[in-house]
Amino acid sequence: MLRYMTAGESHGKSLVSILDGMPSGLPIKESLINKELARRMSGYGRGGRMKIEKDKVEILSGIRKSKTTGAPIAILIKNRDSSIDKLASITKARPGHADLAGALKFAEKDIRNILERASARETASRVAVGALAKILLGEFKVDILSHVISIGGIFADTRGIPFQSLKKKADNSPLRCSDKTAEKSMKAEIDAARSSGDSLGGICEVIVKGVVPGLGNLSQWDRRLDGNLARSLMSIPAVKGVSVGGGFSLSDMRGSEVHDAIFYSKSKGFYRNTNNAGGLEGGMTNGENVVLHLVMKPIATLKNPLESVDIVTKRKVKAQVERADVCAVCACGIVAEAGCAFEIANAMIEKFGGDSVGEMKRNFKGYVDAVRRF
Amino acid sequence: MLRYMTAGESHGKSLVSILDGMPSGLPIKESLINKELARRMSGYGRGGRMKIEKDKVEILSGIRKSKTTGAPIAILIKNRDSSIDKLASITKARPGHADLAGALKFAEKDIRNILERASARETASRVAVGALAKILLGEFKVDILSHVISIGGIFADTRGIPFQSLKKKADNSPLRCSDKTAEKSMKAEIDAARSSGDSLGGICEVIVKGVVPGLGNLSQWDRRLDGNLARSLMSIPAVKGVSVGGGFSLSDMRGSEVHDAIFYSKSKGFYRNTNNAGGLEGGMTNGENVVLHLVMKPIATLKNPLESVDIVTKRKVKAQVERADVCAVCACGIVAEAGCAFEIANAMIEKFGGDSVGEMKRNFKGYVDAVRRF
Amino acid sequence: MLRYMTAGESHGKSLVSILDGMPSGLPIKESLINKELARRMSGYGRGGRMKIEKDKVEILSGIRKSKTTGAPIAILIKNRDSSIDKLASITKARPGHADLAGALKFAEKDIRNILERASARETASRVAVGALAKILLGEFKVDILSHVISIGGIFADTRGIPFQSLKKKADNSPLRCSDKTAEKSMKAEIDAARSSGDSLGGICEVIVKGVVPGLGNLSQWDRRLDGNLARSLMSIPAVKGVSVGGGFSLSDMRGSEVHDAIFYSKSKGFYRNTNNAGGLEGGMTNGENVVLHLVMKPIATLKNPLESVDIVTKRKVKAQVERADVCAVCACGIVAEAGCAFEIANAMIEKFGGDSVGEMKRNFKGYVDAVRRF
Amino acid sequence: MLRYMTAGESHGKSLVSILDGMPSGLPIKESLINKELARRMSGYGRGGRMKIEKDKVEILSGIRKSKTTGAPIAILIKNRDSSIDKLASITKARPGHADLAGALKFAEKDIRNILERASARETASRVAVGALAKILLGEFKVDILSHVISIGGIFADTRGIPFQSLKKKADNSPLRCSDKTAEKSMKAEIDAARSSGDSLGGICEVIVKGVVPGLGNLSQWDRRLDGNLARSLMSIPAVKGVSVGGGFSLSDMRGSEVHDAIFYSKSKGFYRNTNNAGGLEGGMTNGENVVLHLVMKPIATLKNPLESVDIVTKRKVKAQVERADVCAVCACGIVAEAGCAFEIANAMIEKFGGDSVGEMKRNFKGYVDAVRRF
Repeated sequence: MLRYMTAGESHGKSLVSILDGMPSGLPIKESLINKELARRMSGYGRGGRMKIEKDKVEILSGIRKSKTTGAPIAILIKNRDSSIDKLASITKARPGHADLAGALKFAEKDIRNILERASARETASRVAVGALAKILLGEFKVDILSHVISIGGIFADTRGIPFQSLKKKADNSPLRCSDKTAEKSMKAEIDAARSSGDSLGGICEVIVKGVVPGLGNLSQWDRRLDGNLARSLMSIPAVKGVSVGGGFSLSDMRGSEVHDAIFYSKSKGFYRNTNNAGGLEGGMTNGENVVLHLVMKPIATLKNPLESVDIVTKRKVKAQVERADVCAVCACGIVAEAGCAFEIANAMIEKFGGDSVGEMKRNFKGYVDAVRRF
Repeated sequence: MLRYMTAGESHGKSLVSILDGMPSGLPIKESLINKELARRMSGYGRGGRMKIEKDKVEILSGIRKSKTTGAPIAILIKNRDSSIDKLASITKARPGHADLAGALKFAEKDIRNILERASARETASRVAVGALAKILLGEFKVDILSHVISIGGIFADTRGIPFQSLKKKADNSPLRCSDKTAEKSMKAEIDAARSSGDSLGGICEVIVKGVVPGLGNLSQWDRRLDGNLARSLMSIPAVKGVSVGGGFSLSDMRGSEVHDAIFYSKSKGFYRNTNNAGGLEGGMTNGENVVLHLVMKPIATLKNPLESVDIVTKRKVKAQVERADVCAVCACGIVAEAGCAFEIANAMIEKFGGDSVGEMKRNFKGYVDAVRRF
Repeated sequence: MLRYMTAGESHGKSLVSILDGMPSGLPIKESLINKELARRMSGYGRGGRMKIEKDKVEILSGIRKSKTTGAPIAILIKNRDSSIDKLASITKARPGHADLAGALKFAEKDIRNILERASARETASRVAVGALAKILLGEFKVDILSHVISIGGIFADTRGIPFQSLKKKADNSPLRCSDKTAEKSMKAEIDAARSSGDSLGGICEVIVKGVVPGLGNLSQWDRRLDGNLARSLMSIPAVKGVSVGGGFSLSDMRGSEVHDAIFYSKSKGFYRNTNNAGGLEGGMTNGENVVLHLVMKPIATLKNPLESVDIVTKRKVKAQVERADVCAVCACGIVAEAGCAFEIANAMIEKFGGDSVGEMKRNFKGYVDAVRRF
Repeated sequence: MLRYMTAGESHGKSLVSILDGMPSGLPIKESLINKELARRMSGYGRGGRMKIEKDKVEILSGIRKSKTTGAPIAILIKNRDSSIDKLASITKARPGHADLAGALKFAEKDIRNILERASARETASRVAVGALAKILLGEFKVDILSHVISIGGIFADTRGIPFQSLKKKADNSPLRCSDKTAEKSMKAEIDAARSSGDSLGGICEVIVKGVVPGLGNLSQWDRRLDGNLARSLMSIPAVKGVSVGGGFSLSDMRGSEVHDAIFYSKSKGFYRNTNNAGGLEGGMTNGENVVLHLVMKPIATLKNPLESVDIVTKRKVKAQVERADVCAVCACGIVAEAGCAFEIANAMIEKFGGDSVGEMKRNFKGYVDAVRRF
């Protein structure tokens, strides 16, 4: 069992997370985690905050001499701006945020106490945790990419681009979009939105390559991997939809067009030539790439704010304006990669057990051999 | 904490589920549960199995003299056809099913041992559990509906139809579609798919009305209600996508169009005139209707079967043909209602605590009063 | 992850449990489960109920052609007397039972609604679940025994008796006591208690043999195997204490007398000549027998009842008298065996992963080899 | 739901814990937490380490302007000595420690990687978490004490001493023993053990006062409060036994002597004159003080070390000698207080729900009134 909790506020002292259940003997470079944090912060359309924060993790436990020991890993990310106690109270609820629901839930008149935790700043912790999961997955040749496939109504066309190329293109694009033409139009949309004090959302795709079949479990509703991936992605702030493989487009297709015919060859074993299932059948991986889409709503903090209410005076006001991005879809993809990495790593730990990476690899190899000889 | 597990196979002796954590003192009529089971089985496009099974629950525990006692509730649904041990082995994997992934995972050469549990028959248990959750929610005036909004590329137009009317129309439609015109075209699509030995999927909408603000929790990733709802719905067999409120359509809108301005009046308290957020902000209910969409892929068992492989001989074969529906989107909506009912009930039990319905109501009233006086 | 829930009342229709997470391919004989249920019901000092009930399981799911499939296993045990709805209300709270606390908690004036679930009848479900866990453990040569070491102030002396002989003696004793002399005195104590309308408790020992080192986990408080075993045993009705190895007697010994010196030989690997640690160090198994003690308080229902209060009238009354045993310590040992079997099986599934018994064995063998070569 | 995880090694950078699920609006003084940490470190018989470490918490999140916000609380305790990466390898396994089992489990040849996390240093995190739980409990007038009742065969006699006096005496005693005469003899035992390079264990009692009836739950095995308390205490390093109320002494008493007769008066409601049940019946609190005993084995690190094996060379050696206490039973009591505080707070949050202290108090009051009027 792999599990984690995060803590920390946007302007608190630091973000803290604990990842429990990693096997011992895994080499960890902090630089790999910091690189993931940097990926999360970059991107066209991001606001001023992203330039202030240059996140670096400090690992406080669970790693000795650059290797995991099997003990829980505590990760600290210091905030540059930790003025939380001095920041002014906020009473003008922002539509699209946790502000109003949180104030009512926690019986709290100062929205500051809500938004500080509800802030997407928390996702830095998820990215750090996910970076560790990715390092583990790397031992088993599992690779993950994300790229932006839609912003402001512009859709990227990435058909036929192979995994590694798609990944590289996304990593080299300021919008994490692997289609240069679409990227240009997306930038224009972002510029236009910025000009009018508005914001944009969009859609990301996450692809996980190299996953063995049989991760996840059909046997109980809360053990299905598709369900757990959906929870992981839908819980990212501002995400309003998650789909697997063909997703919502499957609604107007026929079964004969959708389901992925099964083939077999001695060299490849069982395989498919299509992947509408997005690598998940019966709540389990089927050996094809796991493909997920998620949609992020437009940033809820607008420079040109919406109508709202002061929760104390009950008077009509303009919503509070905080420093914010115009569009953060590229960051959302990085957070989604992290969420997927965690869930896949968790499913692998459940299936392959093992308290050390060596033991896990031995068990993994036994299974891969059995699948090959099936 | 409310939790449940289900057990049982498609042709096993019976389906069994245990629901743990219901408060005491809740009046339960078995007929209400059976009514939900009947709703799940009806619908245009369903296959022969649906006529064989007439599900009735037998409650084995947790209820005495027609009231819950606080003890776990065990629910039994007998299968009419319980020939599981005698049924022939299956070796021709069906694309789109758990067959192949499950066989490899469980090191099992007889796919029968996989598909029996992976069958959507299991969702009868979820519906029974959800029926109990609905009865609890009814005590707090929470109401749930589902309707079919798309099949085979035909979309229903239900704009402006109020909740109760929408619900009634869906319940009276053989396709659970509240738009008569669309329904007619959908039927034609289903007929056409049936003629060609093919199958269809579609999209459902679930709406939960009467939910107080502040259910769910922003504070930790796995406590967010949107994430838990997504898991609950994505774990339904054949569901490949879940969205909240505006969902994927938010990707080409601007923030100023999307976020729901906040208003206040003495009589209504805080309210919105729009609901693009689908009633969920910051992972919590905001007091508006909770609105979810889910897409079901076309039924994977085709009368005119797909190419596949015999997992034993490794020879190319046509996939196994089992008795199946042409389209089961209407049933999917009923299962989704159940999943939502469970998650909302769980969130209410977490927030209002209480071991008896009376205590829970007292705590609920205290909160509702506090929200009103906020 | 292995997990289970139970449901059912003492005079309800039946006891139901769901065991989720068993690997596929495990041969199951119902007779082995029934044998465990029979062991729970026998014993000197048991009351009339034990003669009425002849428990037999009916397995409703998860097993096909006498083998597990990896699906959840639902176990039904019918009650002979299922008159729960007709049984009279009870208002005279019995000291030592859940009666009063349960009535207040669940806002319930009829204690019948409390005691039916609080009854030790529920432990039949645990024994059935434990029987399945034992079958799994048997594949790994793990064996479990329990015996009674004290009743009514009489202590058994079983020093030096080897495991198999201790087990056999206990199984052949009507009191599950492996010391004939002590057994005789214990019987006399039970007879004396019965004569005076009184009851007795006692102490059991559970020993688990053949466990590999490294089960459980030191890394997080709630993953330590000693803690989980303690929870499992303390949650058995009437158990008021649990100890590991030397237990409470360690309080007046010195470290040099207590800790088990470590030895090594090529044939045996690491080993000990003493086992004051009871096979658990740092919350993990150390390869020696796991040894636990648990104390059961005297049966709380007395033929010659205690002073109490009618919860409705608030008048002083004699406590309600229900059919009951005079002493049930031998049954308690059987339930404790089941609880230990579940926890050890869970720890093995966590460490060795695997979805089939074959995979689990392959992983187990890999670890055992690694320990040997360490 | 209240939950926590801890992280950190004995000579790592710091101890970190995250406590998730505390209600908002609870005033927190760091000094109260530091006071608890100081209590853990004091005591006659403690070693040199205790003088080096002067633990102070740094709260990194979840608290703003000295009040909880409902967000997860991250607690950091810096280690003075954080030389973990430079510390020499250890290969001489110490009997009584996690050393050998951990090395085999984690496939680790340097025992340093095991013992750093297995160290009782981790319990500082538990005490900090427990201090927060105590502050919450204080709002509901729940009070907790621990005292030492046995060391080295000497037993304290504290019969008849009222709660507050017992607490004060323990807090004023260097051994946390409320019986001056016994304390003197215990000190002599400790001195004698120190002289011979040996160590001692002992027994503590924890008493929780002011708990309402009905916390915990009889309905499912893993929801019983006695089970959860047992897990919490047994998971403390070196604890080998836990008992409730009369505990193991109940084995030689009769039911009529054991069970606590129930009385009622208008002013007091239901009450008892005895408390052999230790405040727990049916896995729930019954309104009397919760009374627990736990036994700590003698410290496993001996100045005059035991026989052991070098895990690398397999040669016979003397066990590694680390800086250690002679007797730490008084600290064990403080850790046990923390564990109990957490479990009781968790049970209260489950029963009274609520996201703010105000809401929780309102719900609590409603229940207390209902119990009074029952």
